[in-house]
Amino acid sequence: MSHLNRIRSAETAKNHLSNPIFLCVLSNTDTCQIPGISAAGATTELNDYTPAADAEIVEYGCPRSAPEMPMKEGGAPTPAVITRAALQLTRMPYLFINAGLRFVPEVPAIDLGAKPGRDIRQGNAVSRPDVIYANACRIGSQIGKLSGSVIIGESIPGGTTTALGVLTALGYNYGVSSSFSANPLEIKRDVVRQGINASVITISDARDDPMQAIAAVGDPMMPAVAGMVAGIISSVDAGSDTGTQDHDIILAGGTQMAAVYAIMKHLGMDMGRISIATTKYVYHDRSVDLDVATQDLGCHINVVDPGFADSRLSGLRKYDAGEVKEGVGAGGMMYAAGILGIDRKTLLGKIEAVYAELLTCVNSE
Amino acid sequence: MSHLNRIRSAETAKNHLSNPIFLCVLSNTDTCQIPGISAAGATTELNDYTPAADAEIVEYGCPRSAPEMPMKEGGAPTPAVITRAALQLTRMPYLFINAGLRFVPEVPAIDLGAKPGRDIRQGNAVSRPDVIYANACRIGSQIGKLSGSVIIGESIPGGTTTALGVLTALGYNYGVSSSFSANPLEIKRDVVRQGINASVITISDARDDPMQAIAAVGDPMMPAVAGMVAGIISSVDAGSDTGTQDHDIILAGGTQMAAVYAIMKHLGMDMGRISIATTKYVYHDRSVDLDVATQDLGCHINVVDPGFADSRLSGLRKYDAGEVKEGVGAGGMMYAAGILGIDRKTLLGKIEAVYAELLTCVNSE
Repeated sequence: MSHLNRIRSAETAKNHLSNPIFLCVLSNTDTCQIPGISAAGATTELNDYTPAADAEIVEYGCPRSAPEMPMKEGGAPTPAVITRAALQLTRMPYLFINAGLRFVPEVPAIDLGAKPGRDIRQGNAVSRPDVIYANACRIGSQIGKLSGSVIIGESIPGGTTTALGVLTALGYNYGVSSSFSANPLEIKRDVVRQGINASVITISDARDDPMQAIAAVGDPMMPAVAGMVAGIISSVDAGSDTGTQDHDIILAGGTQMAAVYAIMKHLGMDMGRISIATTKYVYHDRSVDLDVATQDLGCHINVVDPGFADSRLSGLRKYDAGEVKEGVGAGGMMYAAGILGIDRKTLLGKIEAVYAELLTCVNSE
Repeated sequence: MSHLNRIRSAETAKNHLSNPIFLCVLSNTDTCQIPGISAAGATTELNDYTPAADAEIVEYGCPRSAPEMPMKEGGAPTPAVITRAALQLTRMPYLFINAGLRFVPEVPAIDLGAKPGRDIRQGNAVSRPDVIYANACRIGSQIGKLSGSVIIGESIPGGTTTALGVLTALGYNYGVSSSFSANPLEIKRDVVRQGINASVITISDARDDPMQAIAAVGDPMMPAVAGMVAGIISSVDAGSDTGTQDHDIILAGGTQMAAVYAIMKHLGMDMGRISIATTKYVYHDRSVDLDVATQDLGCHINVVDPGFADSRLSGLRKYDAGEVKEGVGAGGMMYAAGILGIDRKTLLGKIEAVYAELLTCVNSE
């Protein structure tokens, strides 16, 4: 079990982060419009606004352009509040990446020129994932010269279904997590089955060329993250003069990042210093055995216990009941905050303050 | 004359650059469509493609999406070749900023959400420069955590006319340079006069609120650069943990950057570590006394002699005859390359190689 740093509060982490940066990839896929798939938005119709609203909450504390909160009425808050809190406490630099947004937030972002993903049931989900990958690679190669440690998160409603799509296409049967407390895994499996049948992709095809799996049943976040990682790694090979010799790359998320990890592995990338960090809420999700999945993939995983059971705010305690669980890089940013010396109590206090601030925006609307 | 590091080859520079990054701001203004104003494109009609083509040349060595070369047939090459050469030799990280592009290049860029500028003759040139400034400030505050030295260049055809507009609005009478060897300064002055009359802006208004000058007769590059600089400076005030205490900020350009410097000064920004670096071709332009202008503004200027008179390529020797002169941060990047230990001969050889590569793209079209 050497691949797993067992569940713990983040401050006990022993790793080191050199000059870290957080990258938040924002994407849409029409897959999130399938009823019952995603709890990322206030309603299924509003799911498309979630990445833009998440970015605005990370940046400003309140949504600006999005018409609604990226969360259910009375439900657990978007993990954007966790990410904002961790960024504020660590003062870590961060950049947003537009990798196929339907609605562009009022936040500057690096535009990869990607289009939103289509409903995977047609088996033709992503146009030119190789171009998204190549553009992301170019950005990653610059980021890699600036930072020795990169934490990459995502916000894409419907993303666990596309993760299931690509994992299934690649021949893995791990299951995936969900932003619902009751995971609609059977709906997702049915959607994926339709997409794979429509695309006629085989496991052999997908493993030979994972871009085909993304094109068939994936989403635009995937080639964006994989390309950035490839670019970051290449910046070392290019012999940058910045003193950076090697990079720690943390994929901040649960099953979606396991899918990206699987893609990169089958692309033949050097996986040496790439790991996953996520919350215990995903790790404990019975719909997916992330322990088995990461061990099978050979991926080191760090699991963080945010300690929300002790929160004074009922919305945060709902994470402990399985709502939302993860997203916007929240697990990875909590992990990073711990490494950078922020103790769990301080972090929880800040998350509560950011959440309270967010509830004020709701009330003032 | 302590503000001026006299003309020299860049390698004699004594400054220090800590972990530098190059930011290239790409913008359009309809002002470049006024006949006779700009030599930045192959023809006046094609001027609008120049920033996108410049970005593609810096990134790939050849234009991709743009229909033509950003230069006159048989004329001096775009300064993008100089910037590409300097970036390759120094391996400096760089990012493109889309600050109001009409045509988006096939290069990932940070999107500030700006619109192209309008023809300044109407006196209503830039919509909401304060929003562009605020967005740029947010990006600058992240960049400032990553780098101790920031070099900022631009590509905006028609930009010397908008520079003249803002300098005139602010009550300065320095003249401006030109990408033509024969500067159409009288056309520019007439255009600016029309714009200022149409906007009814007074010098007092402009000095109190330089955003009004930009809105009337400026361009979207200006609030983008000013905002990024403000953000970079603010990242120090915020007490970043990255070890960066203060930043050297180099505005890479001639009269356009003098205009941005004047704007920032009247915004009340801390100008302590902001300087200009440009080529001797702008510095020697008789249409503008950059020496007097920078001394008057209190701006330190570094002037680089690229040594193109010695080039084996006639296109580069045309810089010595006054064509093109500067752009895409070329002067600042040559200056930075010198500080980073690249000697002038090596740099010239690389520029010639990049230019030769560019001529191949032309021929293969």
